Amino acid sequence: MPERELIEAVERALTVRGDRVLRAAGDDAAVVRAAGVAVTSIDSVVDGVHFERATHSPADIGHKALARGLSDIAAMGAEPGEAYVALGVPDDLDTAAALELVEGMEALAERTGTTIAGGDVSAAPVLAVTVSATGWAASPDELAYRDGARAGHIAGVTGDLGAAAAGLAVLRGAGGELSEAEREELVRRHRRPEPRLAAGRALAGAGAGAMIDLSDGIAADGERLCERSGVAIELRLEALPVAAGVEAVAGELGRDPLEFAATGGDDYELLLTAPPERRDDVERAAREAGTWVRWLGRVEPGAGLRLVGPGGRVAGLRGFEHG
Amino acid sequence: MPERELIEAVERALTVRGDRVLRAAGDDAAVVRAAGVAVTSIDSVVDGVHFERATHSPADIGHKALARGLSDIAAMGAEPGEAYVALGVPDDLDTAAALELVEGMEALAERTGTTIAGGDVSAAPVLAVTVSATGWAASPDELAYRDGARAGHIAGVTGDLGAAAAGLAVLRGAGGELSEAEREELVRRHRRPEPRLAAGRALAGAGAGAMIDLSDGIAADGERLCERSGVAIELRLEALPVAAGVEAVAGELGRDPLEFAATGGDDYELLLTAPPERRDDVERAAREAGTWVRWLGRVEPGAGLRLVGPGGRVAGLRGFEHG
Repeated sequence: MPERELIEAVERALTVRGDRVLRAAGDDAAVVRAAGVAVTSIDSVVDGVHFERATHSPADIGHKALARGLSDIAAMGAEPGEAYVALGVPDDLDTAAALELVEGMEALAERTGTTIAGGDVSAAPVLAVTVSATGWAASPDELAYRDGARAGHIAGVTGDLGAAAAGLAVLRGAGGELSEAEREELVRRHRRPEPRLAAGRALAGAGAGAMIDLSDGIAADGERLCERSGVAIELRLEALPVAAGVEAVAGELGRDPLEFAATGGDDYELLLTAPPERRDDVERAAREAGTWVRWLGRVEPGAGLRLVGPGGRVAGLRGFEHG
Repeated sequence: MPERELIEAVERALTVRGDRVLRAAGDDAAVVRAAGVAVTSIDSVVDGVHFERATHSPADIGHKALARGLSDIAAMGAEPGEAYVALGVPDDLDTAAALELVEGMEALAERTGTTIAGGDVSAAPVLAVTVSATGWAASPDELAYRDGARAGHIAGVTGDLGAAAAGLAVLRGAGGELSEAEREELVRRHRRPEPRLAAGRALAGAGAGAMIDLSDGIAADGERLCERSGVAIELRLEALPVAAGVEAVAGELGRDPLEFAATGGDDYELLLTAPPERRDDVERAAREAGTWVRWLGRVEPGAGLRLVGPGGRVAGLRGFEHG
């Protein structure tokens, strides 16, 4: 693949948004007007680890790589800003496919007000996309952190869970009992997860104590939040908001739908805690951002996440693997 | 490799420098106090493309990946700030080796006042390291760009050239006529290229019109500068500052030492242009930053880089391949 040709085509495909980015492509580095605090993450998606080219179009892969980065920005409650993209391109990915990947990324960038401000293309044995995403806030006090959970807080989650994992199962042949439209919706949730940027900002602004995005599932990511905050969280499994269609897929595979909801991952919903007196504010903020919060339990002194079923503690949900 | 264990070991190996970084590892994203302009690049190095594990220790690879990013910051004339690192780790790289890589990177970060503020570890078929580096300046006017060259400017280069390419040749068996110390120095220049951060800031401050770092060699990178500035540059080949030891290695291989100097790449010296009346200021700034500028030619109306030998235009220097 002629690297230079691809780079030029990529530069033509990208648009600078807003007036913060002074220089994007074409120089040694991008130049961005800065104020307040910059909030930056870096994440890679690798063929065979985080996606399969058999089930993901180049545009899906581009979307997913950027969505992952923006989901981190959402979980901090920051405004999305710029993304920097490193593409590792194998011999069997032609220029048209690489451009389609960039266009999938650019479509999400456009919808979220993000500028893809810089990039790098290099040869690689398999397709790999690394995105460093930067968001902005006027002050660090506007953000929500993983370590902000306190005993007495209530804990909740936005939206619904398990759809991305069920969508993967559909891609692998499950979902025979569902309608075509239901299957497509689950697959869309797997291929095109949407970072909860508006919700993240609204929840941080409404007084969320701690927040984290669910990329590996609420069981694993909830545990991370507990660790960083030095608290225990008890969540009622039966309160988990299981997405439509998940029960049918799980039933067909002889699995518990709660496994999909608790350990499926890639839903990119937000787990948050808040002081009980902010409950109404948080609910209103979520509604105004186009989603809702389901309250699942509470934060307590101690350590670690406990997922509690109707008959007391439920141990040993079979998990999904995450790259 | 247990990913979590490695991530924790990496977090322990890293130090936050200065008071800009409010949150580094451990949250969804790093939080950095921002002002003026942020200057950001992203680059990957991939095993078999940009380095060989046979000739580069893990620490060399970590150094190289960060040096590449910081060299972009140097070429803009910005102050180094933060680096975000995505590691793609193959099965045959154990935790100790991955940590050694991070320590090689951290040593360069320490020497340059950079904080490695965030990271990601994922499985990958071959070792790949992507670094997004951010530098800072009080205003965009303090920076030097690729498009700032103007007809009438003089063009020069810092330091000397060809050592990194000659070092690679030594690793492949050349250099029999050199002393052990001379060979080691060339190999060091190949394995541990040093970003010219102090020189970049000093030169931008002294009135450099345009600047670019030489990662692919002055022939290719000079061409990029011409393109972005919309000018022609004529450089006298015989004025190129050829590094010590390059002539011996080139002679042994039956090649022209100027090929190493003009197309060898990975030297990370800076090519710059400046108005002739700033010549003394530029020279003084370079000296104060511990290096020197060799003037090679001038900027003219037109398009493209011309490398001119004693007998007129020299075409067709055999080039080196760059990943």
